[in-house]
Amino acid sequence: MDAVNLRALLDRFSGHWAPKTIAGLNDYDVKIVKVLGEFTWHAHADTDELFLVIDGALIMQMRDRDVLLSPGELFVVPQGVEHCPRADVETALLLIEPRGVVNTGDSGGPLTADAEPLS
Amino acid sequence: MDAVNLRALLDRFSGHWAPKTIAGLNDYDVKIVKVLGEFTWHAHADTDELFLVIDGALIMQMRDRDVLLSPGELFVVPQGVEHCPRADVETALLLIEPRGVVNTGDSGGPLTADAEPLS
Repeated sequence: MDAVNLRALLDRFSGHWAPKTIAGLNDYDVKIVKVLGEFTWHAHADTDELFLVIDGALIMQMRDRDVLLSPGELFVVPQGVEHCPRADVETALLLIEPRGVVNTGDSGGPLTADAEPLS
Repeated sequence: MDAVNLRALLDRFSGHWAPKTIAGLNDYDVKIVKVLGEFTWHAHADTDELFLVIDGALIMQMRDRDVLLSPGELFVVPQGVEHCPRADVETALLLIEPRGVVNTGDSGGPLTADAEPLS
Protein backbone atom coordinates (compact mmCIF):
# COMPACT_ATOMS: atom_id res chain seq x y z
CA MET A 1 0.00 0.00 0.00
CA ASP A 2 0.97 3.63 -0.39
CA ALA A 3 0.21 6.49 1.92
CA VAL A 4 -3.55 6.75 2.39
CA ASN A 5 -4.61 10.39 2.13
CA LEU A 6 -7.90 10.77 3.97
CA ARG A 7 -9.06 14.01 2.33
CA ALA A 8 -8.18 12.78 -1.16
CA LEU A 9 -10.28 9.66 -0.63
CA LEU A 10 -13.15 11.67 0.84
CA ASP A 11 -13.23 13.69 -2.38
CA ARG A 12 -14.08 10.54 -4.31
CA PHE A 13 -17.60 9.98 -3.02
CA SER A 14 -20.54 12.01 -1.85
CA GLY A 15 -23.20 9.84 -0.17
CA HIS A 16 -23.94 9.88 3.54
CA TRP A 17 -23.85 7.07 6.11
CA ALA A 18 -22.20 4.61 3.67
CA PRO A 19 -18.74 3.75 5.02
CA LYS A 20 -15.90 2.94 2.60
CA THR A 21 -13.10 0.60 3.62
CA ILE A 22 -9.70 2.20 2.98
CA ALA A 23 -7.25 -0.08 4.83
CA GLY A 24 -7.00 -3.18 6.96
CA LEU A 25 -5.29 -3.62 10.31
CA ASN A 26 -5.11 -7.32 11.14
CA ASP A 27 -8.79 -8.32 11.31
CA TYR A 28 -9.99 -4.73 11.70
CA ASP A 29 -11.15 -2.42 8.93
CA VAL A 30 -10.27 1.25 8.64
CA LYS A 31 -13.16 3.13 7.04
CA ILE A 32 -14.14 6.66 6.10
CA VAL A 33 -17.69 7.94 5.95
CA LYS A 34 -19.52 11.20 5.34
CA VAL A 35 -22.51 11.84 7.57
CA LEU A 36 -25.26 14.42 7.77
CA GLY A 37 -28.39 14.37 9.87
CA GLU A 38 -29.30 11.69 12.36
CA PHE A 39 -28.39 8.01 12.02
CA THR A 40 -30.35 5.29 13.82
CA TRP A 41 -30.16 4.17 17.45
CA HIS A 42 -28.20 0.94 17.67
CA ALA A 43 -25.54 -0.95 19.60
CA HIS A 44 -22.79 -3.40 18.73
CA ALA A 45 -23.08 -6.33 21.12
CA ASP A 46 -19.58 -7.66 20.45
CA THR A 47 -17.31 -4.71 19.88
CA ASP A 48 -16.16 -1.21 20.67
CA GLU A 49 -16.19 1.26 17.77
CA LEU A 50 -13.71 4.10 17.21
CA PHE A 51 -14.75 7.42 15.64
CA LEU A 52 -12.28 10.17 14.68
CA VAL A 53 -13.63 13.40 13.24
CA ILE A 54 -11.73 14.64 10.18
CA ASP A 55 -13.99 17.56 9.21
CA GLY A 56 -17.25 18.91 10.57
CA ALA A 57 -18.73 18.10 13.95
CA LEU A 58 -20.30 14.93 15.33
CA ILE A 59 -22.75 14.62 18.19
CA MET A 60 -22.47 11.11 19.57
CA GLN A 61 -25.83 10.69 21.26
CA MET A 62 -26.01 8.03 23.94
CA ARG A 63 -28.92 7.29 26.27
CA ASP A 64 -27.33 9.11 29.23
CA ARG A 65 -25.40 11.90 27.50
CA ASP A 66 -24.14 13.39 24.27
CA VAL A 67 -20.46 13.75 23.37
CA LEU A 68 -19.59 16.53 20.90
CA LEU A 69 -16.62 15.75 18.66
CA SER A 70 -14.69 18.33 16.66
CA PRO A 71 -11.98 17.71 14.04
CA GLY A 72 -8.96 16.01 15.60
CA GLU A 73 -11.08 14.48 18.35
CA LEU A 74 -11.82 10.78 18.76
CA PHE A 75 -14.26 8.75 20.82
CA VAL A 76 -14.66 5.03 21.40
CA VAL A 77 -18.26 3.86 21.82
CA PRO A 78 -18.01 0.92 24.21
CA GLN A 79 -19.31 -2.51 23.28
CA GLY A 80 -23.04 -2.79 23.92
CA VAL A 81 -23.69 0.92 24.45
CA GLU A 82 -26.63 2.29 22.48
CA HIS A 83 -25.65 5.26 20.37
CA CYS A 84 -27.03 7.42 17.58
CA PRO A 85 -24.54 9.64 15.73
CA ARG A 86 -25.86 12.99 14.53
CA ALA A 87 -24.26 15.72 12.44
CA ASP A 88 -25.87 19.10 11.86
CA VAL A 89 -23.30 19.93 9.15
CA GLU A 90 -21.72 17.48 6.72
CA THR A 91 -19.06 15.66 8.68
CA ALA A 92 -16.25 13.30 7.66
CA LEU A 93 -15.20 10.51 9.99
CA LEU A 94 -12.56 7.82 10.27
CA LEU A 95 -13.98 4.60 11.75
CA ILE A 96 -12.06 1.59 13.02
CA GLU A 97 -13.79 -1.63 14.05
CA PRO A 98 -13.47 -5.38 13.50
CA ARG A 99 -14.04 -6.58 9.94
CA GLY A 100 -17.66 -7.46 9.29
CA VAL A 101 -19.25 -5.09 11.77
CA VAL A 102 -22.44 -3.67 10.27
CA ASN A 103 -23.04 0.05 10.63
CA THR A 104 -26.52 -0.31 12.11
CA GLY A 105 -25.46 -2.98 14.61
CA ASP A 106 -28.45 -4.83 16.06
CA SER A 107 -31.05 -2.45 14.62
CA GLY A 108 -31.02 -3.00 10.86
CA GLY A 109 -33.17 -0.64 8.81
CA PRO A 110 -32.77 1.34 5.61
CA LEU A 111 -29.39 2.86 6.48
CA THR A 112 -27.74 -0.55 6.79
CA ALA A 113 -24.79 -0.66 4.38
CA ASP A 114 -21.81 -2.86 3.78
CA ALA A 115 -18.54 -0.96 3.78
CA GLU A 116 -17.35 -1.18 0.19
CA PRO A 117 -13.66 -1.01 -0.54
CA LEU A 118 -12.38 2.35 -1.75
CA SER A 119 -8.81 1.82 -2.85
CA MET B 1 -14.73 8.69 28.36
CA ASP B 2 -15.08 12.16 26.92
CA ALA B 3 -13.95 13.39 23.52
CA VAL B 4 -10.21 12.74 23.16
CA ASN B 5 -8.58 15.83 21.67
CA LEU B 6 -5.34 14.73 20.02
CA ARG B 7 -3.60 18.11 19.94
CA ALA B 8 -4.54 18.90 23.54
CA LEU B 9 -2.99 15.62 24.68
CA LEU B 10 0.10 16.18 22.53
CA ASP B 11 0.64 19.46 24.37
CA ARG B 12 1.03 17.55 27.63
CA PHE B 13 4.37 15.87 26.91
CA SER B 14 7.55 16.57 25.04
CA GLY B 15 9.74 13.46 24.74
CA HIS B 16 10.33 11.56 21.51
CA TRP B 17 9.67 7.91 20.62
CA ALA B 18 7.76 7.26 23.87
CA PRO B 19 4.15 6.42 22.96
CA LYS B 20 1.31 7.35 25.36
CA THR B 21 -1.87 5.31 25.48
CA ILE B 22 -4.93 7.55 25.13
CA ALA B 23 -7.79 5.09 24.50
CA GLY B 24 -8.63 1.43 24.12
CA LEU B 25 -10.54 -0.28 21.33
CA ASN B 26 -11.36 -3.84 22.40
CA ASP B 27 -7.89 -5.39 22.89
CA TYR B 28 -6.16 -2.68 20.87
CA ASP B 29 -4.51 0.46 22.21
CA VAL B 30 -4.76 3.89 20.65
CA LYS B 31 -1.54 5.82 21.27
CA ILE B 32 0.04 9.15 20.42
CA VAL B 33 3.75 9.74 20.08
CA LYS B 34 6.12 12.55 19.11
CA VAL B 35 9.07 11.52 16.99
CA LEU B 36 12.20 13.20 15.68
CA GLY B 37 15.20 11.63 13.98
CA GLU B 38 15.53 7.97 13.16
CA PHE B 39 14.06 5.12 15.21
CA THR B 40 15.46 1.59 15.01
CA TRP B 41 14.91 -1.12 12.37
CA HIS B 42 12.47 -3.69 13.66
CA ALA B 43 9.46 -5.81 12.77
CA HIS B 44 6.39 -7.05 14.62
CA ALA B 45 6.09 -10.77 13.94
CA ASP B 46 2.46 -11.01 15.03
CA THR B 47 0.73 -7.82 14.01
CA ASP B 48 0.15 -5.00 11.58
CA GLU B 49 0.70 -1.49 12.91
CA LEU B 50 -1.27 1.63 11.92
CA PHE B 51 0.37 5.07 11.74
CA LEU B 52 -1.58 8.29 11.14
CA VAL B 53 0.35 11.56 10.88
CA ILE B 54 -1.20 14.41 12.88
CA ASP B 55 1.54 17.03 12.42
CA GLY B 56 4.92 17.01 10.70
CA ALA B 57 6.10 14.42 8.20
CA LEU B 58 7.07 10.78 8.60
CA ILE B 59 9.32 8.73 6.36
CA MET B 60 8.42 5.08 6.84
CA GLN B 61 11.60 3.36 5.71
CA MET B 62 11.21 -0.27 4.67
CA ARG B 63 13.86 -2.50 3.10
CA ASP B 64 12.45 -2.10 -0.42
CA ARG B 65 11.09 1.45 -0.35
CA ASP B 66 10.22 4.50 1.70
CA VAL B 67 6.70 5.84 2.16
CA LEU B 68 6.39 9.56 2.94
CA LEU B 69 3.44 10.47 5.14
CA SER B 70 2.03 13.97 5.56
CA PRO B 71 -0.64 15.15 8.03
CA GLY B 72 -3.94 13.42 7.36
CA GLU B 73 -2.22 10.42 5.81
CA LEU B 74 -2.11 6.93 7.25
CA PHE B 75 -0.13 3.80 6.56
CA VAL B 76 -0.35 0.25 7.86
CA VAL B 77 2.98 -1.54 8.20
CA PRO B 78 2.16 -5.21 7.53
CA GLN B 79 2.91 -7.91 10.04
CA GLY B 80 6.52 -9.07 9.78
CA VAL B 81 7.75 -6.24 7.56
CA GLU B 82 10.95 -4.59 8.73
CA HIS B 83 10.56 -0.85 9.12
CA CYS B 84 12.38 2.12 10.56
CA PRO B 85 10.38 5.34 10.99
CA ARG B 86 12.27 8.60 10.48
CA ALA B 87 11.23 12.21 10.92
CA ASP B 88 13.38 15.14 9.86
CA VAL B 89 11.11 17.57 11.70
CA GLU B 90 9.25 16.91 14.95
CA THR B 91 6.24 14.82 14.01
CA ALA B 92 3.14 13.75 15.92
CA LEU B 93 1.55 10.39 15.19
CA LEU B 94 -1.50 8.38 16.14
CA LEU B 95 -0.69 4.66 16.47
CA ILE B 96 -3.13 1.76 16.73
CA GLU B 97 -2.00 -1.77 17.47
CA PRO B 98 -2.90 -4.67 19.75
CA ARG B 99 -2.38 -4.07 23.46
CA GLY B 100 1.07 -5.13 24.62
CA VAL B 101 2.91 -4.53 21.36
CA VAL B 102 6.35 -3.11 22.14
CA ASN B 103 7.53 -0.17 20.05
CA THR B 104 10.84 -1.75 19.06
CA GLY B 105 9.25 -5.10 18.13
CA ASP B 106 11.82 -7.87 17.88
CA SER B 107 14.84 -5.57 18.09
CA GLY B 108 14.90 -4.21 21.64
CA GLY B 109 17.49 -1.54 22.37
CA PRO B 110 17.56 1.79 24.20
CA LEU B 111 14.42 3.21 22.56
CA THR B 112 12.24 0.40 23.89
CA ALA B 113 9.42 1.96 25.91
CA ASP B 114 6.14 0.85 27.39
CA ALA B 115 3.23 3.01 26.32
CA GLU B 116 2.18 4.77 29.52
CA PRO B 117 -1.42 5.86 29.89
CA LEU B 118 -2.08 9.56 29.30
CA SER B 119 -5.64 10.18 30.33
